[in-house]
Amino acid sequence: MALRIGWIGTGVMGLSMAGHLLDKGFALTVFNRTMAKAKPLIDRGAQAAASPREVGEHSDVVFTIVGYPSDVEAVTIGPEGALSGMKKGGVLCDMTTSSPTLAARIAEVAAEKGVIGMDAPVTGGDVGARKATLSIFVGGDAEGFATIKPCLEAMGQKIMHCGAAGLGQRAKLANQVAIAGVMFSVCESLLFAAQSGLDVRRWQDLVVTGGAGSVAMGTLGMRMIDGDFEPGFFINHFVKDLGLVLEECRRMHIVLPGVELADRFYRSMQGRGRGSRGTQDLINALAEFSGTQWTPVPEKAGR
Amino acid sequence: MALRIGWIGTGVMGLSMAGHLLDKGFALTVFNRTMAKAKPLIDRGAQAAASPREVGEHSDVVFTIVGYPSDVEAVTIGPEGALSGMKKGGVLCDMTTSSPTLAARIAEVAAEKGVIGMDAPVTGGDVGARKATLSIFVGGDAEGFATIKPCLEAMGQKIMHCGAAGLGQRAKLANQVAIAGVMFSVCESLLFAAQSGLDVRRWQDLVVTGGAGSVAMGTLGMRMIDGDFEPGFFINHFVKDLGLVLEECRRMHIVLPGVELADRFYRSMQGRGRGSRGTQDLINALAEFSGTQWTPVPEKAGR
Repeated sequence: MALRIGWIGTGVMGLSMAGHLLDKGFALTVFNRTMAKAKPLIDRGAQAAASPREVGEHSDVVFTIVGYPSDVEAVTIGPEGALSGMKKGGVLCDMTTSSPTLAARIAEVAAEKGVIGMDAPVTGGDVGARKATLSIFVGGDAEGFATIKPCLEAMGQKIMHCGAAGLGQRAKLANQVAIAGVMFSVCESLLFAAQSGLDVRRWQDLVVTGGAGSVAMGTLGMRMIDGDFEPGFFINHFVKDLGLVLEECRRMHIVLPGVELADRFYRSMQGRGRGSRGTQDLINALAEFSGTQWTPVPEKAGR
Repeated sequence: MALRIGWIGTGVMGLSMAGHLLDKGFALTVFNRTMAKAKPLIDRGAQAAASPREVGEHSDVVFTIVGYPSDVEAVTIGPEGALSGMKKGGVLCDMTTSSPTLAARIAEVAAEKGVIGMDAPVTGGDVGARKATLSIFVGGDAEGFATIKPCLEAMGQKIMHCGAAGLGQRAKLANQVAIAGVMFSVCESLLFAAQSGLDVRRWQDLVVTGGAGSVAMGTLGMRMIDGDFEPGFFINHFVKDLGLVLEECRRMHIVLPGVELADRFYRSMQGRGRGSRGTQDLINALAEFSGTQWTPVPEKAGR
């Protein structure tokens, strides 16, 4: 019998991801706080639900991808959450980047109702969501993983079952730890090169594939050089992620000074009303920190 | 008329690089403080010199690649340095990673004698030196660059003329800035993943090509996972480089908090007698900082 899928959260990521499930022929029931944003899915045959609970009532598997851990809690195990409507044997899978501790608790609460709680946060951004090339880190029961795997394969390319509930979130947070350091690498090196009087476009081209290179130097670094500051990933969201990382560090009794530094910088930017800028705004903030400024080198001027 | 080449400094890097010049048929005169280390070159037909000055006397172009800026100064513009023996029209090119300010001064002093001073530090490590796949950042006169270009092409793959004397060094230091951040990215993310109970080998495989990925995560990160702590790049040398970076930051009035953090960590490791370990030892130091330890996952155990 074909799985009936529920989908909660139709933001930039969720809308594309749920669309891939429709492409594969899954029956979909959707809910979003701002229901208008779910319209493209409704227009393609998805059923609209009036609440997360109603999504649960009509679904064997419910996916959620919302904003903050408090939102995750509300739409999953909250009084009106999806779990309250789900039947025994269902799978409740949160794809938001959220707290590993919350993910483990959702799995516990779900288990009491005979529902399998899973966490499956993703990387790859809006482009990865649109092209179905996401990487997906999955935590939770092997049985639940087997059930949702065909759905995940419709949304992503690399899918890793990391272990018990919460481990998907931990794998995603470890990814964010790596991003924090890489962003400092890209911004500080470009700033140093520019202040030194180098042609940063040519410099970047030489360095990006060497031992100092990174994926972000080729993508976000190039946007900084181009002067393209359109947000790809919001500072507000990264601050949320780094907060979750530091919470876990505290729990695990480990100190990551690089992450702490990044957290301080991004929070200071957020405090100055720049939270809805993209993370590549860090290069401007670092320049301002020294009373100078970053000057992009658009293609034509640079050659 | 064929160029007569002088070579000063036959350490791990210099020995391979000078060897490529012999391969291309250049006549070579060599000097090294410990002359025994130059034997492989002498055996292949290079002339031994008794001092840097004597190298200068027999050469149209002199390359130096030694240890610290004080060594560079001594073998180039010091009382017994190569310049003291060189004739008008020669080119004196330092390939050590050294001070941009010193590079500019060498060019100035050399110009007074009608010699062109160049700086051409490299990246790519011992492997790049051996395989002639180095990237080379060149600073100095365009005329000097044209003269030495055939030699550089024998040693490296990507060669960038960055501008005036000193700019080659600045480009190399900007590369070291990028490495500083990337190393924190790799070490902190692996440590976070391991402490979270994840299979770091599988995690790394998923993350290395994504937005959080870096060249170092694929190379040094893999060595950390394998438990291979053979030094590729010595902490002592990186501390030297970071010191040069911070000196330039002071001169340019910019603050790079990520580099400052890296400098503190690597210096503390140096202070504890670990300066001759490889830079990948950072993951051990970070683990110890939290009173825990990094546990490698050798291939067999990890699968």
